[in-house]
Formats: sequence, structure tokens, C-alpha cells
Amino acid sequence: MKCYLECIPCFVKQAVEAGNILLSSGKQREEILQKCLKLIINMDRDMTPPEAGMKIHSIIKFITGKKDPYKKIKDYYNDRGPEFYKRYKGKVAKSKDRLLAAVRCAIAGNVVDFGVAGEFDAEKDIEKVMTQDFAYSDYDAFRDILSKSRSVLYLADNVPETFFDRILIEELGDKEITYAVRSAPIINDATVEDALIAGIDRIARVVESGSCAPGTVLSLCSADFLEIIRKSDVIISKGQGNYEALEDIKGKDVFFMLKAKCKVVAKHLNVKIGDIIFRYNNRK
Amino acid sequence: MKCYLECIPCFVKQAVEAGNILLSSGKQREEILQKCLKLIINMDRDMTPPEAGMKIHSIIKFITGKKDPYKKIKDYYNDRGPEFYKRYKGKVAKSKDRLLAAVRCAIAGNVVDFGVAGEFDAEKDIEKVMTQDFAYSDYDAFRDILSKSRSVLYLADNVPETFFDRILIEELGDKEITYAVRSAPIINDATVEDALIAGIDRIARVVESGSCAPGTVLSLCSADFLEIIRKSDVIISKGQGNYEALEDIKGKDVFFMLKAKCKVVAKHLNVKIGDIIFRYNNRK
Repeated sequence: MKCYLECIPCFVKQAVEAGNILLSSGKQREEILQKCLKLIINMDRDMTPPEAGMKIHSIIKFITGKKDPYKKIKDYYNDRGPEFYKRYKGKVAKSKDRLLAAVRCAIAGNVVDFGVAGEFDAEKDIEKVMTQDFAYSDYDAFRDILSKSRSVLYLADNVPETFFDRILIEELGDKEITYAVRSAPIINDATVEDALIAGIDRIARVVESGSCAPGTVLSLCSADFLEIIRKSDVIISKGQGNYEALEDIKGKDVFFMLKAKCKVVAKHLNVKIGDIIFRYNNRK
Repeated sequence: MKCYLECIPCFVKQAVEAGNILLSSGKQREEILQKCLKLIINMDRDMTPPEAGMKIHSIIKFITGKKDPYKKIKDYYNDRGPEFYKRYKGKVAKSKDRLLAAVRCAIAGNVVDFGVAGEFDAEKDIEKVMTQDFAYSDYDAFRDILSKSRSVLYLADNVPETFFDRILIEELGDKEITYAVRSAPIINDATVEDALIAGIDRIARVVESGSCAPGTVLSLCSADFLEIIRKSDVIISKGQGNYEALEDIKGKDVFFMLKAKCKVVAKHLNVKIGDIIFRYNNRK
């Protein structure tokens, strides 16, 4: 998915909000904004939103002098992760359809997002997703394709979504599962370190995609990772960033699990902001 | 009120949305965005949001080649005005406290706004304001000060708010009322033409403030209008734009009537987005 004009105010908002979250100096906040505005003016409109987001957040890293500006925020949510895991693992255990409940959990975990402009209430919004109707649900196709698959590539999104991902991975059955994370910290996206904190390495092979953008942008992925994609029987893609990066991928069975958090993605999916989506795609 | 950093994404959003509302050509929409981004980079951060809005919309006027780009939208709402007037005039007539009901109407009419980024449902949102609790209400002070005042300066905001203003003006009693509008079309703000369409000239003296911004910015007002301000016993200021322009005016009894439509104004007033405010101010 390319950037729409409507993405631009959101990038500017992210630049301002990142400054507010990360900095105390008004001068530095203004500097981030100035540099981001100049970047946007000259930006190639054909890039995907995660690529643009990567550039915006590169400026934020440069001006704050931090490689991982959102570390404190990630630490906070990683600390809370086990509590989320326990609570929602318990709900799955009590469910009639454990796999479906685990899919819900995985989408519910997608709520915490410091990228897309907007506000969230982690506790309340996660709980809401657990009972919300799907705007799309290709669950039957998922069960069917999963049952015929040996290898599953699971594309991670954020922290503490990692803990919710673990719940779903534990319900996928006896598969060869690869869990792919970003190759460098960006916003509150999951890295190898975060996957380990959530204990994913005990149930899946954890790999870096090569992408340092807040989405699995194929042109940024490593050759090794592209090979993993090629060989995977089915792909589970979490969150908006991965959807924006991969919605037009061809010749693969992909299941997108996300909450639509902005107008552009909601429109692209023909849903409303706040809707939850579990959508199968296999473009020819 | 000066521009906050948080105002900047909103200006960019206005540039994009104005392009979407007014233009069919993607090229012109991109041109508006580019020019607005360049403007914002070099913009004096000490100006008020209405001054910045004026500059953004000057670019929109220049690129669309239209002096009144929102004319069709204003025509639509001006056509619907009499229907609103009739319906809400009827509600006021049935009220126990007619003046208070008319104040509510005047604030309800503030709902239709193509400036501040956001979406509205005119019918539903107007109706909601009619029964919503005030976040601030200085109604007692208003009744008191009004009873001692001879001359009232009423600062208009938008179309079709003009029709709702007429309802309030008709309840103000035997006063010398001046109704001030913008000196040139900007967004869906009221001009002399709009005031005449709403029939305000039959119940008040209609004047231009001199300001072509979407707010009564004193530095843009004519000498004649500043004299009208000086001589007025009490000022009724409608909407966010006038609040942003005049919240720090000194030595005047001002009643601000507005719906808080953005985060910045809501924070400034210590209320929530969507709250309705009827606030007295007389800064020394």
C-alpha cells in the first residue's frame, strides 16, 4: 500500500507526539517537527507508510540521540506482559474454540501502538476486542489452510502484543513456526530482545526480517528472510504496519490480523476505524 | 492563544481535507499540501491559530483560483438555515428559561465547522448539544451583566450558526446589538452576505471586523471595529476561532460560547473534546 495524502497529517502528528512523549525540551521538539516537515515535502509518495514511518523515526532517533527512544515504554509493557499472558491464556483455556479465542487474543494485543496517531486505553481496549464482532473473519479458511500447513511464518508487530502472540502460537499445534521481528528498535515494535522476553524462543524460531521499518517491507528484508517467506506454507501477519507493507504480496497464503486504527487503512479494507479484521489473502 | 506544536498536524490535516473537499485533481491537492508544508516550516509560532489558518486557506484560495472555495458548502447550509431556525426557535418558545435555551441553540449551531479537523453529523450533533451538560456555565453572570448592558457586540462564527445566532439575539431583549462577521470568505465562516441571508440585519447592525482570518484577530481588525469593541458593554464571542483570537483580551466583559473541537483548545480550557462551554472572562 502506498502513502495516501491522508497519511501525511498522521506522520506530522507522530512527529509531534513522539516529541511530546520522549523529550522535555521544546527546542528539540520543534527541531524534530521542522526536520520531519522538510522530509515529508521531498518524500517519494510511492513508498509504503512503514517506510515513511521509518524515515520519520530516524529523525527522532537522531535528534534524541537514542537508538531506542521508546525503550522505557517497551520496558513498561514488557513488565506487564506476563500478567496479560496469564489472564488471556486463562480465557483461552476456558473457551469452547481455543484456536478462535487465541486469534482474538492475538488481535487484542495489537491495541497498544505508539505509531499510528490516536489514543488507546490498553486494559479497556484489549477487553473490548475480546468480544467485538469481526468486520472480516476468514477463520474457516484459516483452520483449513493451517491444518494442511507444516511451516508457519508469524510476522510480529508490537510490544506487549508479543505475549498475546505467544498464546496464539501455543494453539497452532505441531508446526514449524518462525517468528519474525524487526531488525532494529522502531517505536514499540518487537525486536529479538522483546521476543525473548515474551518467551517466544521456547516455542518458535525467532528471526529478524531485515526490515527496520514498522512493517515487513519486502524491499528492506534480507535475502535469508525472503527465502523464509518463499518456503513458508502460511503467513500470519500482525498489525497495520505489516498489512500496509504486505497487502499486495503475491502467491502466498496470508492471514492478516489487525485492528484498523486509521482512516486510510480502514478505507482500504472497507471497514470502520476500530474494527477488527482477520482476513485471508492470496493474490495471484 | 498562540499556536501550539499540536496545532501543526491539524493545519496539515486541514490542507489535505480542503483539497479533498474542493478539488478533483490529485495534482492540485498535492500542490496545496506542498505549499502548506513549506509555509508551516517558516511560520511564526507566535501567531494565533486563526492567523495560521488564514495563511493556509490563502494557499487554498490561490491554488483553486477561488475567492470563496467553500461557497457551495455555505450555500447548502444557508439553504437549510430556515429549517434549523424554525425547529430551534420552536424549542426556545416552549422552554421555561427562553434565554438559556437560546444560548444552547447558539452553541449547538457551532457544530458545523469545516475548519477544525474532525467530522460532524450536523443533525445529530446539534441535537446532542441541546441536552448536553455544560463543562462551564457562567449563565448567571451572563444574565446579570446582560441586564446592566445597553450595547452588545456579537462575534459571529460559521454558517449556518448564523441562524442559531438569530434565535439568541431575538432573546437578548431591547439592546443595541452589533453582529460582527469576517471581512472576506474563509472556510464556512460567516460574511455580511451570510448574515443577511440569516436575516440578522433586521434585528442587529451587521458589521465587518476587518479580520479575514477564521477568528476575530485584533491585529487584523479595522480601527472602526476596534472602536466598536471599546464602546461595547458586553461581548458574545462564538466558536473556537474567536476564542483562540480573543481569550486574552483585557478589560472587557466577554462571554465565550463554543464547543471544544480539538485537543489544544480542550486542554487550554481544561475540558474534554466535545464539551460545550459558556465562559465569562474579564481579564485585567
